Amino acid sequence: MKPAKLKIDRVVLDTSLFVNPEVRNHFGKSPTDAINGFLSIAEQIPSLEFYMPSSIFAELLNFVDESKIPGQFLAIMRQKSPSRHELVCPAFLLYELIEDIRDRINKGLRIAEKAVRNVGKSEEREIIQNMRRNYRDALREGIIDSKEDVDLILLAKELDALLVTVDHGAITWAEKLGIRWLLPTKFRDYLMSFIDKPADSEVLQKKRKSKSIKK
Amino acid sequence: MKPAKLKIDRVVLDTSLFVNPEVRNHFGKSPTDAINGFLSIAEQIPSLEFYMPSSIFAELLNFVDESKIPGQFLAIMRQKSPSRHELVCPAFLLYELIEDIRDRINKGLRIAEKAVRNVGKSEEREIIQNMRRNYRDALREGIIDSKEDVDLILLAKELDALLVTVDHGAITWAEKLGIRWLLPTKFRDYLMSFIDKPADSEVLQKKRKSKSIKK
Repeated sequence: MKPAKLKIDRVVLDTSLFVNPEVRNHFGKSPTDAINGFLSIAEQIPSLEFYMPSSIFAELLNFVDESKIPGQFLAIMRQKSPSRHELVCPAFLLYELIEDIRDRINKGLRIAEKAVRNVGKSEEREIIQNMRRNYRDALREGIIDSKEDVDLILLAKELDALLVTVDHGAITWAEKLGIRWLLPTKFRDYLMSFIDKPADSEVLQKKRKSKSIKK
Repeated sequence: MKPAKLKIDRVVLDTSLFVNPEVRNHFGKSPTDAINGFLSIAEQIPSLEFYMPSSIFAELLNFVDESKIPGQFLAIMRQKSPSRHELVCPAFLLYELIEDIRDRINKGLRIAEKAVRNVGKSEEREIIQNMRRNYRDALREGIIDSKEDVDLILLAKELDALLVTVDHGAITWAEKLGIRWLLPTKFRDYLMSFIDKPADSEVLQKKRKSKSIKK
C-alpha cells in the first residue's frame, strides 16, 4: 500500500512571536528562550513549513544576540523575501490605501492645529509630546506603514500561507487579500494540535527509523 | 486596392485642459470656450479616441454649466472608469508608496512641532496658516492623493493611452508604470500635428463623401 502523501502547509511569522512580551511568554521568558521554545515544538511538525521575510528576520536580530541563535532555527525558519517584482496587487487596494491616507493626513493637520491653539494652556513640552502621540496614532495605527509590513503580507500571499502577526495594519490587509491570519497568542495551541496528528507522528517515526537504519 | 487601415491611438484627459487658466487658454478663454475649442479640433482627428474617467468628468461639471456642454462633447469625450476590480498593479509600487508616505508623515510632524514652538513669535492665525500650507505641500505635493488621480493613471494604463495632465503625482506614477504622458500646454500642438496627416484627411474626406452620397 502506498503511504498517504503528507500535506504541507506554510506559516509566515512576524517578530512579535519572539519579541512581544505578552506573546512570547507562550514560548519562553526571553526572546532567545522563545526561539528555543518554538524550535522544540516546530521540529516535531514536519507538515508545517515556517517562513520569515528577510527584513523581519533583520528586525529580530535587534532583540536577540545573533551568536545565541541555534543553527537549527536557520534551518526551520526559512528566510525569504516576497518576489517583489513579480507579484501584483489588485488595483482597488490602491484606492482604499489612498483614500485612507487622505483622511489620515487631514486628521493629522487638525491635531497639529489643536496643539498650536493649546500653547499657553499647558507646558510646551507636554503639548508637543501629546501631539506626537495623537499624530502617530492617527496617521499610523491600523495602517501598513513600513516595507517590513508589506513584506509580511506579500510573502503570505505568495506562499498561500497562514500569517501570524499582531499588527493591525497587516491583519486589515490580510482580510482584504483573503490571507489566513492568526494572533500569535493562539499560535502555541495551533502548533500543539499538529503534534498528536497520526500523519505527522507516522512521518516522524519513519524519519527516525531511517536515521537509525543509516546508523 | 484595399485602403490602409486607420491606426487608432487613445488619449486620457484630466480636467486641467479645460479648467486651469494657464492651460486652457490654448483652447478658449472660459472652461466652456475651451471645451468648444477642443471639440472643433478633436472632431477633425478620427485617428484619436478621447477618454475621461467618470470621476474626472464629475469634477469638470463643477466648473462648467452642464446645460452648455454640447452633446457632441459627450460623443467625442468618452466617459469611462478604469476596470477597478480587474486591474492589478505591480507590488513594488506598494513599497514605494508606503515608504514615501512614511517619510511625508514624519515631515508633517516636524512641521507641526515647529509651528507649536513658533507660537508667541508671530500671530497665532498666521502661524496656523503657514503650517497648513507647509503641511499640505509636504504631505500632498507630487503624490497621488485622490481616487480621481488613481482613475486617471489606471485608465491610461488599461487603454495603453497617452495621459494629458499637469498633476505631478500622476506624472510620477505614469513614469513608474510606463505610461506615455504629455503636458496640456503642449496638447494643442500635438493635436494640430494630426490634422494635416494624409491618413486622417483621407478618412475625413471619405466620411464627408459618404455623407453627401447618402444625402
